[in-house]
Amino acid sequence: MTSPLKNDRFLRALRHEPVDRTPVWLMRQAGRYLPEYRATRKAAGSFLGMAKNPDIACEVTLQPLRRFDLDAAILFSDILTIPDAMGLGLYFVEGEGPKFERTVRSAADAERLGVPDMETELRYVMDAVRVIRRELGGSVPLIGFSGSPWTLACYMVEGGGSKDFARIKAMALNDPATLHRLLAVNTDAVIAYLAAQRAAGAQALQVFDTWGGVLSPAMYREFSLPYLQRIAHELERGDGAQRTPLILFGKGNAAYLSELADSGAEGVGVDWLVELGEAARRTQGKVALQGNLDPATLYGSADAIRHEVRRALDSYRDGNDGSREGHVFNLGHGMSPDMNPDHVAVLVDEVHGYSAR
Amino acid sequence: MTSPLKNDRFLRALRHEPVDRTPVWLMRQAGRYLPEYRATRKAAGSFLGMAKNPDIACEVTLQPLRRFDLDAAILFSDILTIPDAMGLGLYFVEGEGPKFERTVRSAADAERLGVPDMETELRYVMDAVRVIRRELGGSVPLIGFSGSPWTLACYMVEGGGSKDFARIKAMALNDPATLHRLLAVNTDAVIAYLAAQRAAGAQALQVFDTWGGVLSPAMYREFSLPYLQRIAHELERGDGAQRTPLILFGKGNAAYLSELADSGAEGVGVDWLVELGEAARRTQGKVALQGNLDPATLYGSADAIRHEVRRALDSYRDGNDGSREGHVFNLGHGMSPDMNPDHVAVLVDEVHGYSAR
Repeated sequence: MTSPLKNDRFLRALRHEPVDRTPVWLMRQAGRYLPEYRATRKAAGSFLGMAKNPDIACEVTLQPLRRFDLDAAILFSDILTIPDAMGLGLYFVEGEGPKFERTVRSAADAERLGVPDMETELRYVMDAVRVIRRELGGSVPLIGFSGSPWTLACYMVEGGGSKDFARIKAMALNDPATLHRLLAVNTDAVIAYLAAQRAAGAQALQVFDTWGGVLSPAMYREFSLPYLQRIAHELERGDGAQRTPLILFGKGNAAYLSELADSGAEGVGVDWLVELGEAARRTQGKVALQGNLDPATLYGSADAIRHEVRRALDSYRDGNDGSREGHVFNLGHGMSPDMNPDHVAVLVDEVHGYSAR
Repeated sequence: MTSPLKNDRFLRALRHEPVDRTPVWLMRQAGRYLPEYRATRKAAGSFLGMAKNPDIACEVTLQPLRRFDLDAAILFSDILTIPDAMGLGLYFVEGEGPKFERTVRSAADAERLGVPDMETELRYVMDAVRVIRRELGGSVPLIGFSGSPWTLACYMVEGGGSKDFARIKAMALNDPATLHRLLAVNTDAVIAYLAAQRAAGAQALQVFDTWGGVLSPAMYREFSLPYLQRIAHELERGDGAQRTPLILFGKGNAAYLSELADSGAEGVGVDWLVELGEAARRTQGKVALQGNLDPATLYGSADAIRHEVRRALDSYRDGNDGSREGHVFNLGHGMSPDMNPDHVAVLVDEVHGYSAR
């Protein structure tokens, strides 16, 4: 059923093996900045309609790979599929981001939550993984993903996006037991979800801890980090060269890089608020690093983009004992709808060209 | 004209002198969370109408001091008065934050900008300082303030708030000379503005670098830090015990604390993303530290607030060789309209009570 992998740079980098050039993919590489994505979305009607239809999810996953020489595909889906499958009722309001019909505010709310059944309640995700894996035909590896337990909890408690995370922080202060109950069931669900994506064909797995960086160090170490560590420990993902690598991405995680490097994950994704060389020094080769150009770099000219790409590549190498091994190039956060596809081509070209020298 | 200062804890802490208890004030302590503020605002009609009327600005500055045992007052004003006086046309849209009628997007736009005359174009600010200073009657010191050159530039280029700072980051990448021209005139204006507030009676000065933390380390060190350093060096503010202290507050400045400590400023304000003890270790007593409770702590119960206050006070002491000297207690960012005034009373009481032991 599955073809041998033609381009394994991404997986080799995650194993700290030599590569002919630094692999690159971009968070939210399938998205509204592509005219073909906008056309597909218009036809599909809605974001969730796309994510819940495996053929459409496959189509938009493949769109950026037809344009750019990217070294990995990432499943087109949403980070909030798990709480949706738990019954909270995910919906989107144009221009406002994701919302939930029902929130988790009390111990009783948290007690009602259970781990969804992956092959029924989240079957559309596993079907999308299977279709994409087949359609990729071994060209590049497919990344599956999930939101982190803390990040899922943020949306589940707040009921949507938030500027100050007042409700979940109040819960952390006033009723930490309920929050831990919520985080525990989220963690069980994330582990089952990632394992199911792996079984369906995902060749690497990423956890997005988008909102870990809004926490004080004490709160991060109580409410986000331990659950990331549990995922890294408990997620069964094979051994040796057959091991499916796990990447822990976190916005604002620079202060916790040494702890994340000791978590057992194969890779850590970092945002642009830390020099990559400094991140490499803090993680001491225990994990591969993924990142970390400021996405706004794509608003720069071609010359500026090439300059910033070279700086990031060299920074990593300088902090990694002169070696480019163990680096997956990426942005420090997702792409935006108003970005120019031509600039993505420049970025990918420069990553490959400069790192091959 | 001016009365002797009855409570000088705040100024003593900024000089690293012994205090009977740790001084405390709160960013945005005069604000919508107070019913009396909302009543004044309703009568005045608008935020800018309040800020531009010295008697009203004085009234709202004093409101929190009537309720709480705060150790400093801060001028009621906006961080964007300077670009408004430069002719950009500041206005507010309810629920959307500040906006400018005219933006700075080109070299020609930047060339047109000049330092406003402080006693004519910004006279309303200086008048407010004079009125507040008189009305305080020496009860507590008055803090004057300004936005940082980078933070002002963000609003001037974007034309308002921003999620991704795409326009100013594009300028940084594509036309850094224009951005440096803009930052230079902003810096000249900030220095003149703070000097004028000092001359009008402000007894301490704070620069708010609200958006420095959105920059990569290389960009922060090119576009924000050098201008903060120039303010600290060039702002004439007296000598010895008569010196008017300068506090550099920055969201997301944890990675730059040793550079900020060497800037020549008397104090550095930090957000909640770093342990205060760690901040103290990084600054080695070269500056006083101000902060750093997560404002969301005020959504917690009284017990939770007292616990977090004690943790912050002890963290500072542990990182400062066992001494509480050189600490000004504050939040890590401003207060929000939905906060409970009773919780502020708990916070202030606990800071004073616990630190006096």
